[in-house]
Amino acid sequence: MAEPAESMLDHPLVPGPTSAVEKGPWHYGADYISVYFRGDPSHLSGLVPHSFHVGDGACVAYVCEIISVADSALDLVSTHPERTVYREAAVGVKCRFGEREGIFYPMMWVTTEWSLLRGILNGYQKRLADNISLTKLHPLNPGLKPLSSGIMFGGFCIKGAEKMLSLSVSVKKPGSQSDLPSFGATFGLRRFPRTEKSQAELEEPVEILKSNSIVSDVWLGEGSLETVLDVGEIEPSSGAIYKAGFTISGSRVLRP
Amino acid sequence: MAEPAESMLDHPLVPGPTSAVEKGPWHYGADYISVYFRGDPSHLSGLVPHSFHVGDGACVAYVCEIISVADSALDLVSTHPERTVYREAAVGVKCRFGEREGIFYPMMWVTTEWSLLRGILNGYQKRLADNISLTKLHPLNPGLKPLSSGIMFGGFCIKGAEKMLSLSVSVKKPGSQSDLPSFGATFGLRRFPRTEKSQAELEEPVEILKSNSIVSDVWLGEGSLETVLDVGEIEPSSGAIYKAGFTISGSRVLRP
Amino acid sequence: MAEPAESMLDHPLVPGPTSAVEKGPWHYGADYISVYFRGDPSHLSGLVPHSFHVGDGACVAYVCEIISVADSALDLVSTHPERTVYREAAVGVKCRFGEREGIFYPMMWVTTEWSLLRGILNGYQKRLADNISLTKLHPLNPGLKPLSSGIMFGGFCIKGAEKMLSLSVSVKKPGSQSDLPSFGATFGLRRFPRTEKSQAELEEPVEILKSNSIVSDVWLGEGSLETVLDVGEIEPSSGAIYKAGFTISGSRVLRP
Amino acid sequence: MAEPAESMLDHPLVPGPTSAVEKGPWHYGADYISVYFRGDPSHLSGLVPHSFHVGDGACVAYVCEIISVADSALDLVSTHPERTVYREAAVGVKCRFGEREGIFYPMMWVTTEWSLLRGILNGYQKRLADNISLTKLHPLNPGLKPLSSGIMFGGFCIKGAEKMLSLSVSVKKPGSQSDLPSFGATFGLRRFPRTEKSQAELEEPVEILKSNSIVSDVWLGEGSLETVLDVGEIEPSSGAIYKAGFTISGSRVLRP
Repeated sequence: MAEPAESMLDHPLVPGPTSAVEKGPWHYGADYISVYFRGDPSHLSGLVPHSFHVGDGACVAYVCEIISVADSALDLVSTHPERTVYREAAVGVKCRFGEREGIFYPMMWVTTEWSLLRGILNGYQKRLADNISLTKLHPLNPGLKPLSSGIMFGGFCIKGAEKMLSLSVSVKKPGSQSDLPSFGATFGLRRFPRTEKSQAELEEPVEILKSNSIVSDVWLGEGSLETVLDVGEIEPSSGAIYKAGFTISGSRVLRP
Repeated sequence: MAEPAESMLDHPLVPGPTSAVEKGPWHYGADYISVYFRGDPSHLSGLVPHSFHVGDGACVAYVCEIISVADSALDLVSTHPERTVYREAAVGVKCRFGEREGIFYPMMWVTTEWSLLRGILNGYQKRLADNISLTKLHPLNPGLKPLSSGIMFGGFCIKGAEKMLSLSVSVKKPGSQSDLPSFGATFGLRRFPRTEKSQAELEEPVEILKSNSIVSDVWLGEGSLETVLDVGEIEPSSGAIYKAGFTISGSRVLRP
Repeated sequence: MAEPAESMLDHPLVPGPTSAVEKGPWHYGADYISVYFRGDPSHLSGLVPHSFHVGDGACVAYVCEIISVADSALDLVSTHPERTVYREAAVGVKCRFGEREGIFYPMMWVTTEWSLLRGILNGYQKRLADNISLTKLHPLNPGLKPLSSGIMFGGFCIKGAEKMLSLSVSVKKPGSQSDLPSFGATFGLRRFPRTEKSQAELEEPVEILKSNSIVSDVWLGEGSLETVLDVGEIEPSSGAIYKAGFTISGSRVLRP
Repeated sequence: MAEPAESMLDHPLVPGPTSAVEKGPWHYGADYISVYFRGDPSHLSGLVPHSFHVGDGACVAYVCEIISVADSALDLVSTHPERTVYREAAVGVKCRFGEREGIFYPMMWVTTEWSLLRGILNGYQKRLADNISLTKLHPLNPGLKPLSSGIMFGGFCIKGAEKMLSLSVSVKKPGSQSDLPSFGATFGLRRFPRTEKSQAELEEPVEILKSNSIVSDVWLGEGSLETVLDVGEIEPSSGAIYKAGFTISGSRVLRP
């Protein structure tokens, strides 16, 4: 696991515990509802930066709830719980950087400022959603059946007057991590454009540094999806729900 | 379990699936962070309607996340997940109605319209919060320790510029349902005041009709609490976290 | 102006200044974007309670921002500004109660709890929206033209994953209050259904008691509208923007 | 007015009209409630980057509502009104960069993503608030007195469980722009830290490029303020309300 750079400071520049982004690495535990589909590569290239090359059209869309803590601020989970829970919706496109295979997410909506800014620093194309909602079951709710074939999961992402994404998964059978499509590396683009000529600007393709990956509670099934992103025609898709944990320590610049 | 009244209609008066309140019974599954404390009965009587009599000062405060579905609309959990998840914060006071012992909640804040209006119909003194946040752990998050002695849980409720309630629990050891203080019945007050002399008005003390109660995953510990409700001086308190499930079919009018 | 009933108490039952509804009368100042249209009476009757009779299909839809203060709590405008500003979106249908002409609003979405509960007490079919947005101009914004022919106004109301209503008005020329379609009285239905047989219930058609009405800054133009309410086919419509002020002291029960 | 750089692109990298930041210049019209105070320079230096030097302790705090449009997307005011209205709260500290006098805002909270990200690109230390509320009057509200001596204005900013800032102004008499304390230039710090050693990073002190400034409707009075920012002891302060308009075309890098 790469060390976060010594020079990394809080962002924006604010002393103390109310900073937007704590020092990493950052740990994640998430409950996913994912839909795997094939989009039209000629449309998908419009969603991916020039340094990446779209593959065969394989894509994923998901909504999830994430519990996240910075290694430097584990106490926030009890002292500032609003800094440790968010929901996320995203569309990812399989692509290559040179010989390296991975996934680039043209859009990743989140529900909190800190996940927005932290993600942008790491190279994710994050945006803030007004509402991300997704199916949650509860083991003690007397009206809900236990997870079994036929159970439906759904979720959506709203921003302004638009439904950015909605999806559903009808689960059929338990599975394991190896049943989930694999996309390779997670790509990103760190980017800080200038607003005037005297300014510096920054744009660098990156690979997100993920470690400690673990997946559990996989159920496989059928998925359906609508999104405002222009992915072209969507081919019949599969879906899955699962839990995942991982650590992100930053992102490494990709050199051609 | 009592039958919901035949005449119960949606509220407000709106045809179809976008009504605020679906036909009950309603099923609940919740994750609680609770603090048990003793308030000052002379202050507590100011928080409870005249038909109820405050007991020895025993009280509870909690924050929780609830997954809730109406028996008449179980599909909402996947088609409208935003109609099935909410967070709640409340303060409850042990009291009596005649010989019957129970708990009355002077204030119960929630995060969604449908839990607000449904609760008011059943006799809860519900209000809408701007933000209710609480500790959530995730089994796969590499930065979070498994539940064990010393783990802290916290939560708060914000409305406008005020922190209505904040609490924390430091868990010490696993427990069971029988370790949790018991308050008896759940009391309420159905109330629809008039705004002009020609109008009817309605005010009736009720007992919430709960069934299917089940509790699990209890951990016991120490609790601390701050609230804007005038409960008098707060005596050293205990705390607990646990999961609970139950069904509410309505509420029955209490007759003296 | 009718006196608010002596017996009117805060609602829900909470002592002190954090109650949901202050004692009226309540004063309003609003900026409206309104679209006037004709719906299909056979569809509109599905949106209106049985005691009212739909007229020729004349309807209005609007979005607005409202500054509102209770006569008993004028200080809230500075001490609790969040208790004095809200946004509202609504669809209203012209109808009759006996010989009396007026307008009934099958749905009125608002952005705050206090306008929701106060409205329900007075007989409005209020619901909480997730987002109501509308065009605001500012006289000093260097990029915005002064109000003149061709200026466009728009607004929308989002709840969950649905766009409940969106509308736009292209203004053409200044007008006056007499240019705005008039609907007569404002009707409502005070309604508090029961959730169990032992409970009382309450349902009474009312007329909202409005006084002090004043309108200014009227601009007339063309309007367009989309709504999820089933109003039938929408006939070509006109639109207007204007400011209005009024006082509501409660609502009077309508007797056949 | 400086030209926005040719190379400026949307951010984050998203094709089309749903980008977070439209191409500038950006035009603003705002209604301010401002409190002018003196903080303790030894505390204030902790809030300002090293390249700036705190002056005599003169500071301002404000809450405001802003109508803002990008020159490249004026239609958003009617097509996407949620992209043109936000509220802002800030604390600013008088300081110098070399010989140049100006104001640096250690913290500027806003209510929308686009004002957050646009501000960060221009060098503001922006953060997202959960709730910024402020007094609004309406000329037609029958319960509100016209603006006159003694009228109170208030506002606050909430983030998580904290009240970041609350202020009030009691207006005494009309004034003009020349009655308002002047701070000179508006300073900022464009900053994009790295999260790993291979990444580039960017940090440059800037001066915001403001033009088209206009102020009207000034009322002067007394102010009071509370903030979580460590400004030291706050000396008796004055306050003002006013409208302002201006254009921001970007920000120019400050060279020593």
